[in-house]
Amino acid sequence: MMKEVVEKLEEIVEKDFILTKKELIESYLFDETSIPVRPKPTLNCIVVKPENSEQISRILKLANEKRIPVYPRGGGTGLVGGAVPTKDGIVISLERMKRIEVDRENLIAVAEAGVTLGELLKVVEEAGLSFPPHPGDEGAQIGGLVACNAGGARAVKHGVMRNFVKGIEVVLPTGEILNLGGKLLKNNMGYNLMHLILGSEGTLGIITKAVIRLCPKAEYTLTLVLPFNSRHEALSTVPTILTKGISPLALEYVEKELMEKSAMHLGEKWNIEGKVFLVVILSGTQNEVYNEAERINQICSEKGGLEVYVAERQDEQNTILKIRSNIYTALKEESADIFDTTVPPSNIGKLADMIDKIAEKYSAYIPVYGHAADGNLHAHVMKKDIDKYEKIKSEIYEATINLGGVITGEHGIGKIRVKELYKFMSPKSIELMIGIKKLFDPNNILNPGNVLSIDENQALRTEQ
Amino acid sequence: MMKEVVEKLEEIVEKDFILTKKELIESYLFDETSIPVRPKPTLNCIVVKPENSEQISRILKLANEKRIPVYPRGGGTGLVGGAVPTKDGIVISLERMKRIEVDRENLIAVAEAGVTLGELLKVVEEAGLSFPPHPGDEGAQIGGLVACNAGGARAVKHGVMRNFVKGIEVVLPTGEILNLGGKLLKNNMGYNLMHLILGSEGTLGIITKAVIRLCPKAEYTLTLVLPFNSRHEALSTVPTILTKGISPLALEYVEKELMEKSAMHLGEKWNIEGKVFLVVILSGTQNEVYNEAERINQICSEKGGLEVYVAERQDEQNTILKIRSNIYTALKEESADIFDTTVPPSNIGKLADMIDKIAEKYSAYIPVYGHAADGNLHAHVMKKDIDKYEKIKSEIYEATINLGGVITGEHGIGKIRVKELYKFMSPKSIELMIGIKKLFDPNNILNPGNVLSIDENQALRTEQ
Repeated sequence: MMKEVVEKLEEIVEKDFILTKKELIESYLFDETSIPVRPKPTLNCIVVKPENSEQISRILKLANEKRIPVYPRGGGTGLVGGAVPTKDGIVISLERMKRIEVDRENLIAVAEAGVTLGELLKVVEEAGLSFPPHPGDEGAQIGGLVACNAGGARAVKHGVMRNFVKGIEVVLPTGEILNLGGKLLKNNMGYNLMHLILGSEGTLGIITKAVIRLCPKAEYTLTLVLPFNSRHEALSTVPTILTKGISPLALEYVEKELMEKSAMHLGEKWNIEGKVFLVVILSGTQNEVYNEAERINQICSEKGGLEVYVAERQDEQNTILKIRSNIYTALKEESADIFDTTVPPSNIGKLADMIDKIAEKYSAYIPVYGHAADGNLHAHVMKKDIDKYEKIKSEIYEATINLGGVITGEHGIGKIRVKELYKFMSPKSIELMIGIKKLFDPNNILNPGNVLSIDENQALRTEQ
Repeated sequence: MMKEVVEKLEEIVEKDFILTKKELIESYLFDETSIPVRPKPTLNCIVVKPENSEQISRILKLANEKRIPVYPRGGGTGLVGGAVPTKDGIVISLERMKRIEVDRENLIAVAEAGVTLGELLKVVEEAGLSFPPHPGDEGAQIGGLVACNAGGARAVKHGVMRNFVKGIEVVLPTGEILNLGGKLLKNNMGYNLMHLILGSEGTLGIITKAVIRLCPKAEYTLTLVLPFNSRHEALSTVPTILTKGISPLALEYVEKELMEKSAMHLGEKWNIEGKVFLVVILSGTQNEVYNEAERINQICSEKGGLEVYVAERQDEQNTILKIRSNIYTALKEESADIFDTTVPPSNIGKLADMIDKIAEKYSAYIPVYGHAADGNLHAHVMKKDIDKYEKIKSEIYEATINLGGVITGEHGIGKIRVKELYKFMSPKSIELMIGIKKLFDPNNILNPGNVLSIDENQALRTEQ
């Protein structure tokens, strides 16, 4: 069968961009999901690299006709196995679709799916503008960032990807190419299909282009580290900062041990006194930023914090940010899974405490850190605790739901959280989601095995 | 039939809140749509005022079983006939659902559907916070604002309703009550059904509660009037202001004649020299605001503008805003229809020019004004030009689409723009929308005749 498909594909895409040999396709079979939980890929698949949406449309028509599973692939930086081809079929890599243009007058970038976050940031900066959210690894591609509605540390001030996407071009599993939205800040023309597709993780269509809102360049940033002796003191400071009208670019919660571990991993040192920290990045004019820093200083001391550390030099700010960002990397090797549970921001301290209790109960090590201002807490379950993994996961998820939260604020459902989606969503919501999937993808060719693919999910459903 | 339905309804809602007499139901039959274009309501309907979502669920189950059309109704401030009951059936008024609470720590308000915008603003202000967008008439109700994804003049800085809604409670036409989202700033748990329902204009479910993001209180505002001698000069100044990092609360484009007319209507005077104006509202700390005002002053003079008028006193700021806001009211009586076409912001000048040409071609008077920074231009067709209305509308819509725009950025489709939705949307998008409508509302009981109700639309489709 595969031979015949390859021949058909060669009528659509140049031969050089169709890969079948094991050594060539290997790097397309995994994403960044931790090994203990990541899904097993098929080895029997074809990797195709189309150069435009017309080619993708033809590939999808072929796949739809022949009922061949199709796996869209961006930068492969996902953490829930969303891009892993689990059935024999076609992987469509968007990597060659790299056109990008900046429309300065409208504060808009139009980027094809294969443009990486790093490339977008570069082009936007060259145009004298900015794209303030930093929704993940800079190797992530626009298509994936949009399809997964990526979040990141800078959602406090500006929100997640969804807030920045004003239009998309998307190829449906049945081959139609839709242009939804545009360079538009207001659009009420019928049901918003675009917002339905954002966050659908490549199961409703393949996003080939995005119209992205940009911001003016922020002239100045300042990074503050607020040290505290207790988690409670630190986290109770967060709403005070926010309700006083200070809107930081990022407001992160970290603990000493993890910052030290990350610094060591990087060959750096973390010398700031204190048990836990809030890392705050301020952006704006120089005046605004210093004014906000002064107010934060005041709030911090009122809340029992230790002396605030202010980083002004860009290299120093970068180092702090790098240490914060690399907590993930420093823990990665030993991790079995990384959660991204999200609760109402005022409950993040409670969730962290409950996770500590769960760790104690199972004699496990579960480090936590996260985006304090938006309620998004990352907790790692380590490989050494893999035998208790299912129980720990289940208890952390239960705790999150009980605090008014969701099991995923950033990473999405992918292939490894489908069962939990079923568990924590109302049956009617699931029914509607499956109905929508059927409507867009009647033959279930797009990312089967991923979120809300019909067959597996119905099996799951019967199980419960 | 109606008698039997009333009896059934009396088992659900207290008798006092079920209206059938003509003189009592009359005020529930219309919205603010201009008389020449507004749909004709049925007189044979029952108005019910449930007090909670359980009652609404029971009413919808009854209606679904008996195939009775149901029209959800908020403040009745819509401009496209969306709330007008055009078939014999039930009007569900949300007016009694008025519970509201502010969660200061999470910067969130949870408001039931019947809370008016004015009431929300009051409660939020009392809590020392703010809800910065001003998406319409203060008599509009939360349910309607959310269901129609309202916009308004302050979308420049903060975006439309969609950006502020983090969760909803919605009753489906089949009676299920869904809670989607929550007090959450990040949420990637499956397809985002909430965003699909936002902007669906009461055709997929009845929104009974909304979780709304608030902002800290802005300490200070300043209103600037930038006068220019030409439309081109004024509008070319807008992107310069925005790309320089100034983010006004509102940035409006108005012409002298309309400001004078509105001032007269209010018994005020408009004395500022100039042919056209940009009205800019700045918000922030006092320092920020004066700093931005200075930069705008500089930009304005570079762009050939006349002397900037700065209003500092709150009463003076209010007067300017009132004159701007009442252009609509001043024209209303003589208007046949009010458009809310939206284009990429850089094209708003072109659209205004094209509308002038259309006016000239048909010897019509078509005043224009609008939200310059978000590309949303309001044009009125007057009653005196009603014989040319269809042609004018069609040409304005064509011009808008050719400039990369949409026929509605704010008001929605309602009942009076369904035909144009069909004309300007791709057949596949329409097919998906109809599929979604069927999925949510298999018997087409909710707002039939409105956007994407199946029967009429299929008829329309066959027509084209």
